[in-house]
Amino acid sequence: MTATASIEPATRPYAFDSDTAVERTGDQLWVANLTDRWDRLGGGPLGGYSLAVALRALALDVGRDRDLVALAAFYHRPARHGRVDIETETVRAGRRFATGEGRMRQGDREILRVVATFGDLGAEGRTVVFNEPPELPPPDTCFDPLERLDLPGVTITERVEYRFAQMPGWRTGEPTGTPEASCWMRFKDDRPSNLLALPLLVDAAAPVVLEIGAAGSSTLELGIHLRAHPAPGWLACRIATRHVINGFHEEDVEIWDSTGALVAQARQLALLA
Amino acid sequence: MTATASIEPATRPYAFDSDTAVERTGDQLWVANLTDRWDRLGGGPLGGYSLAVALRALALDVGRDRDLVALAAFYHRPARHGRVDIETETVRAGRRFATGEGRMRQGDREILRVVATFGDLGAEGRTVVFNEPPELPPPDTCFDPLERLDLPGVTITERVEYRFAQMPGWRTGEPTGTPEASCWMRFKDDRPSNLLALPLLVDAAAPVVLEIGAAGSSTLELGIHLRAHPAPGWLACRIATRHVINGFHEEDVEIWDSTGALVAQARQLALLA
Repeated sequence: MTATASIEPATRPYAFDSDTAVERTGDQLWVANLTDRWDRLGGGPLGGYSLAVALRALALDVGRDRDLVALAAFYHRPARHGRVDIETETVRAGRRFATGEGRMRQGDREILRVVATFGDLGAEGRTVVFNEPPELPPPDTCFDPLERLDLPGVTITERVEYRFAQMPGWRTGEPTGTPEASCWMRFKDDRPSNLLALPLLVDAAAPVVLEIGAAGSSTLELGIHLRAHPAPGWLACRIATRHVINGFHEEDVEIWDSTGALVAQARQLALLA
Repeated sequence: MTATASIEPATRPYAFDSDTAVERTGDQLWVANLTDRWDRLGGGPLGGYSLAVALRALALDVGRDRDLVALAAFYHRPARHGRVDIETETVRAGRRFATGEGRMRQGDREILRVVATFGDLGAEGRTVVFNEPPELPPPDTCFDPLERLDLPGVTITERVEYRFAQMPGWRTGEPTGTPEASCWMRFKDDRPSNLLALPLLVDAAAPVVLEIGAAGSSTLELGIHLRAHPAPGWLACRIATRHVINGFHEEDVEIWDSTGALVAQARQLALLA
């Protein structure tokens, strides 16, 4: 396994790193194993987890020591546990940006396609932000929604920790009617977040449509823009759905780091389950 | 040229339809001509125009009589006027959704890659919206920002009409400092908007970073979710940039139709020019 400086800082055998490991089996061909340790509400590997595996191969092949900047993932079929094969393609390798495509298969069927652009987030340029991180009390005074909660088959909750200012409505059995949430988030094993971990984390919270009584949500497309390298510590997340139309709905996620910097912005189009 | 019922309702020789025409040259191979009639601020074909040409081929090949639902376009190099070759790929053709990929080349270089999912926006499902169209006075009482304006080399302004409640700051020479705008928009030749036209229209307004004194904006990635078939008439657009970080910035666009329905939601990641 090759490590790329800006994308793979973690050195301990953290769960995220061992469970997204990819092995090169040929020219732009990779194999990986989707473990049962990142299972979502509804069962099966979280979409953000299979995406992180595909991005790992793309980062090694096309990204190298560049930053992950933008990606769009199309989910064709639910992933299952076990072997996945990934084919990577160098779409262009320019001076400032490199773009690659990853196609993930299980058996003979493609389950996920992702296009990603890598570049330099720290390049000189103007900064002006017209937004604020969500207002959240310190994490140690917040509620842990997983306390005394049994979610059979869900394992993402053993990998990621959450803290809410108030218990979310879906957790208390009284959905708020407003599909919004703010929360703290981090890996349970203290793995520092980085650009490659953020695509999993933007997909790791419970879908906010649970607050309008939906049973769940299945992703069609997930677009993510990485905006800065996250600082160590808890991440503050703001999640909102504003338009549910014939079951189709977007979910917008912002992730802010412990220094108050926006580090990721994501939008997915999903269907009510 | 084959016409697909839901995507190609226009029958008159409207500029949009003649200038996005594609000719099949082989199995999933297409050729088209990028005219000089959709040139953007800064010169050269608008990104949304070359995208519309690629989507036309994808709609004919993969979409057929399904609705365009979601797409992500990656811009590698600026398009030039003239011949483009498009290769289309059927990624999956399922019962509910079909996904395809389009790769647009000029000469031997890929300039644009788009992945798009087609399905049925009208399928049964819940509708609940937590947002409103922008508040705009009737179009005939609004300002036309193009009146007595000479923008050498810009031709998109001959194809699309805009109406603003107040003259935008970039237009009066006094940028507002706030990268936001709301405006009406429609094709000048009265072509009805449809799902295939919206990807051009979400990219057709002046970038709102002009309001913070930027000279322009060049797109890296553009993601669009189509949410409903637009009704005839003016479209109300809401455009905002909230995070400019080292020159990277998102631009969010909502388009609402004349009945007050959200019809498209777009986000692009771009660089200050």
